[in-house]
Amino acid sequence: MKKCFQLATLLRGTPAEYSKRIYVSGTIHPYVRVPMREVALASSKAGCGKAEPRAHVRIYDTTGPWGDPEFEGTISEGLPPFRLEWIRMRGDVEEVRVRRCSLDGEGTGLDNLLFGGRPVLRAKPGRKITQRAYARAGIITPEMEFVAIRENMRVADTRRVPDGATRVSDVPRTPSSITGRDSDSVPLVLRRFPQRIPAEITPEFVRQEVAAGRAIIPANINHPECEPMIIGRNFLVKINANIGSSALASGPEAEVEKMLWAIGWGADTVMDLSTGRDLYLTREWILRNSPVPIGTVPIYEAVEKVGGKPEELTWDVFRETLIEHAEQGVDYVTIHAALLLRFIPLAVNRVAGIVSRGGSIIAKWCLAHNQENFLYTHWDEICEILAAYDVAVSIGDGLRPGSIADANDEAQFAELQVQGELTRRAWEHDVQVMNEGPGHVPLHLIEENMIRQLEWCAEAPFYTLGPLVTDVAAGHDHLASAIGAAMIGWYGAAMLCYVTPKEHLGLPTKEDVKAGVIAYKIAAHAADLAKGHPAARHRDNALSMARAEFQWEDQFNLCLDPVTARAYHDQTLPEDSAKLAHFCSMCGPQFCAMRITEQVRKLLAG
Amino acid sequence: MKKCFQLATLLRGTPAEYSKRIYVSGTIHPYVRVPMREVALASSKAGCGKAEPRAHVRIYDTTGPWGDPEFEGTISEGLPPFRLEWIRMRGDVEEVRVRRCSLDGEGTGLDNLLFGGRPVLRAKPGRKITQRAYARAGIITPEMEFVAIRENMRVADTRRVPDGATRVSDVPRTPSSITGRDSDSVPLVLRRFPQRIPAEITPEFVRQEVAAGRAIIPANINHPECEPMIIGRNFLVKINANIGSSALASGPEAEVEKMLWAIGWGADTVMDLSTGRDLYLTREWILRNSPVPIGTVPIYEAVEKVGGKPEELTWDVFRETLIEHAEQGVDYVTIHAALLLRFIPLAVNRVAGIVSRGGSIIAKWCLAHNQENFLYTHWDEICEILAAYDVAVSIGDGLRPGSIADANDEAQFAELQVQGELTRRAWEHDVQVMNEGPGHVPLHLIEENMIRQLEWCAEAPFYTLGPLVTDVAAGHDHLASAIGAAMIGWYGAAMLCYVTPKEHLGLPTKEDVKAGVIAYKIAAHAADLAKGHPAARHRDNALSMARAEFQWEDQFNLCLDPVTARAYHDQTLPEDSAKLAHFCSMCGPQFCAMRITEQVRKLLAG
Repeated sequence: MKKCFQLATLLRGTPAEYSKRIYVSGTIHPYVRVPMREVALASSKAGCGKAEPRAHVRIYDTTGPWGDPEFEGTISEGLPPFRLEWIRMRGDVEEVRVRRCSLDGEGTGLDNLLFGGRPVLRAKPGRKITQRAYARAGIITPEMEFVAIRENMRVADTRRVPDGATRVSDVPRTPSSITGRDSDSVPLVLRRFPQRIPAEITPEFVRQEVAAGRAIIPANINHPECEPMIIGRNFLVKINANIGSSALASGPEAEVEKMLWAIGWGADTVMDLSTGRDLYLTREWILRNSPVPIGTVPIYEAVEKVGGKPEELTWDVFRETLIEHAEQGVDYVTIHAALLLRFIPLAVNRVAGIVSRGGSIIAKWCLAHNQENFLYTHWDEICEILAAYDVAVSIGDGLRPGSIADANDEAQFAELQVQGELTRRAWEHDVQVMNEGPGHVPLHLIEENMIRQLEWCAEAPFYTLGPLVTDVAAGHDHLASAIGAAMIGWYGAAMLCYVTPKEHLGLPTKEDVKAGVIAYKIAAHAADLAKGHPAARHRDNALSMARAEFQWEDQFNLCLDPVTARAYHDQTLPEDSAKLAHFCSMCGPQFCAMRITEQVRKLLAG
Repeated sequence: MKKCFQLATLLRGTPAEYSKRIYVSGTIHPYVRVPMREVALASSKAGCGKAEPRAHVRIYDTTGPWGDPEFEGTISEGLPPFRLEWIRMRGDVEEVRVRRCSLDGEGTGLDNLLFGGRPVLRAKPGRKITQRAYARAGIITPEMEFVAIRENMRVADTRRVPDGATRVSDVPRTPSSITGRDSDSVPLVLRRFPQRIPAEITPEFVRQEVAAGRAIIPANINHPECEPMIIGRNFLVKINANIGSSALASGPEAEVEKMLWAIGWGADTVMDLSTGRDLYLTREWILRNSPVPIGTVPIYEAVEKVGGKPEELTWDVFRETLIEHAEQGVDYVTIHAALLLRFIPLAVNRVAGIVSRGGSIIAKWCLAHNQENFLYTHWDEICEILAAYDVAVSIGDGLRPGSIADANDEAQFAELQVQGELTRRAWEHDVQVMNEGPGHVPLHLIEENMIRQLEWCAEAPFYTLGPLVTDVAAGHDHLASAIGAAMIGWYGAAMLCYVTPKEHLGLPTKEDVKAGVIAYKIAAHAADLAKGHPAARHRDNALSMARAEFQWEDQFNLCLDPVTARAYHDQTLPEDSAKLAHFCSMCGPQFCAMRITEQVRKLLAG
């Protein structure tokens, strides 16, 4: 099991191959070094034959040290815990014990520990150590500065931007010329809950948003390998990739590979939803090698501990599991605490019933005992645990609609209101909070989800699964859900949980993970463009300019998926010379509109 | 070249294999027989263990006779011209001459004609023979009744619909409980231009919509093989698939195969965008075998005739080409008549310039001659030709934005206003009209396109290409554009022109055609759900009920892509017994929420 993957292997065939790794340093905290991908561009002809240098394009990079060609680590060593110093510097944590799990699962003695030397940290009694607590105390942490730099990838384009490019404003634009009334065609949700994205994201802005609860930085003090990132609707829309074995397929090694593959394609966080055997071990492999926040659903493991029988769950088993996840370094946990006993009858007679695994477990427990959800009744204790490690909570939506017919129904919204109540209570413990959302929702009912969540949950970040906009697309649900995801991202969802083509049908493979991540990168980026995030449109413009100028290499390298773009082009025109050609096989040389436009431009100029 | 494909080969691997062909007859015109696919469902357990019969689900079928297992025709014979009798019965057309082209391209003598025996028809002098003319005269044609039956696929579900299913209304719903004001969260475009979709689509409703210009039935009298369909925003959203060779790749045979493949997956119309050699011949193959309307862009062939030099185009060459297309049976033609000389300077300095092939040809011609677009100056003559054969016109958007930066700019909207002017003038000739739209548009600017088109073009149907919501998704542009397509379909676009994964990169293969069609079937269906089309949601409900009840076969067969859904499921659980299992490999038996929900339901009931 002690395989040593090399960087080249791990990220081979991902966009990292088509860009350069650079770092940008902090100013408040000079030791902060934020990695980015930089795509070098050919000289521009600027449409008039005169070559001008063009600025390189910087792209948000989720690959961590694995994307740095100078990094020589291996999976069995894990990533360097660079954030450990930042955490210790604050002087508010203590060591609980050393890590107990060996990487290869054999033995537990220290002699056999691969990651064993590292301590497990916890807040000193009485100390508030969450990013929310620091933010509210007016402290700009290195994590906050890291995040602020990361959100500002754009560099000024040294090339004159053509007039056309200035006509799309960077904020949701109102076609006032049509209506005579400015606000009419801006969606209601954006009128009621405006997005306020500054031209430059500053560390102070990050602090304010975290303090207000509108954004979170999931960063468990026991996951010091993690590069900070922020989830909030005034920042870039983020995407999550689910991985995880089930009892029927896959194993720890395959899951680590999937995690690396997912971040190679741009996943901002990864959830380990493993069920079955070796859960602790799989998670340890993933955490020690992940530069992105890791989320889990602890109840899955708790149920395994009681023989797979939901009705035998107890608070003690759940509590112990939650603490293990927190000590291991899980950055956020889904907890289905808002599903109350009285909501269950509302859900079982739906077309699709309860489709959340966690939701169905809780429902069964509640009915078997005829008692209120123990996660709800122990909410304050849960929050105390989470606060001690700065684990963020993602309040689950156990009654999310699993079919178009069930969207926006009473069961769903009853739970959402309780999600709001629990959000406020978690904030009192300075726990960072987001709320999970659907699911399956037809296009015309998506906005209502966002409005209610922002209103009832006091603008805490919304983290949705799609939503899928139809039920009939099995085999293509990454696409059916990317439609809903793009829309709700524009409306204000802060993070979009991907759906793969295997949804409803089976456990995703590596190829499915890629398809899901790409679909969601498209959805998130489309939302960022519509939200007017200053870092978003620069890349589209650079790509379109490259396209108009037949700079094929630049065009490929700027894509979300340079590999596929290149391969598709080369299917019909594989020769190197075709990369300089002013056409492709779609229209051929004679009928290329872009080529004729070049001639038209010369006619006009001459 | 005289291959004889058999039905089984042509549609193998398409959804037709997973349903039964049925026909529904007309009442006004009893000889009207509308084909549909019927998916047989297993008996329902209705969530409580009691088996009840469930109605089969009817699905709109675009495969024509090819989808009927009893049809024994071959491609070299062409489809039966069943509509010829309907046309002749009206007594308002005359024979111009017999068809001049042989199928195999060799010789032109009658002795060698494969399709040669059929006459070419044209309106008798002074007679109005378009569906618009009939509609305005109060006549319900067989074409209109065909269309009305076709739009009403839904059969009543004999199973009691669970309460949950009634909560989503069939019209754009207002979350009035949130706002207290009913109209606020309905998009502006739907408030200004409401969609009025009746619970049952009647022939009279079809007539009214066609008469009002809000819908068209593209049905050239020389394409009697074509099964009527309707394009309008108060009907199901339609999708078009582009096929066509370029000088660099493909040929007539491959294009016919692609056409059949496209309709096998559900394309409602097909555009033949071939350039290069054998254009007439390719088109003849396609038309004689197509049960769906065929669209073309005649200017491509006109340019070929003048040696590929746009500046050498003349009105006479274009006119001759247009008449050939009309005589051959092309059902709608794209004509870039709204791109005026004075708009060209607005477009050339955009980020992406002019990206429409037709637009760039016209721009070059205008500048080379410093004259107004000859298609604009000859508009009335064009309309006279179109009216004589009932060819619908799709007024092109030669200046559509080809990048996010160019969306909704002056050039684009200047042309759209002229599209409106030409729409009204074409209506005076009783020509059926739709308008083409973009292109590349960020999410927040899509609605403006729909509002302006409806306003300026007097609610003529809008036919958009996507739009793509970002430029950075090359290799996945079917997905990036399906996002925009779903949204604009909801807003009111009547037909969505597909984009394949090869867009911007090369000529699509058969696999790309499938990917494009599926993406657009998803987008169109999502829009139909949001629009509240009565035929749309039934299928989603049936599929979700099948899913909740682990009726795997029903679930596959109801999908837009039964082939992929089944294959994905079988990747991990190939055994026949797994089709009866109450779980899949995604979560495994223990963690299946739907399985646990079944248990919860029993707990509640017991």
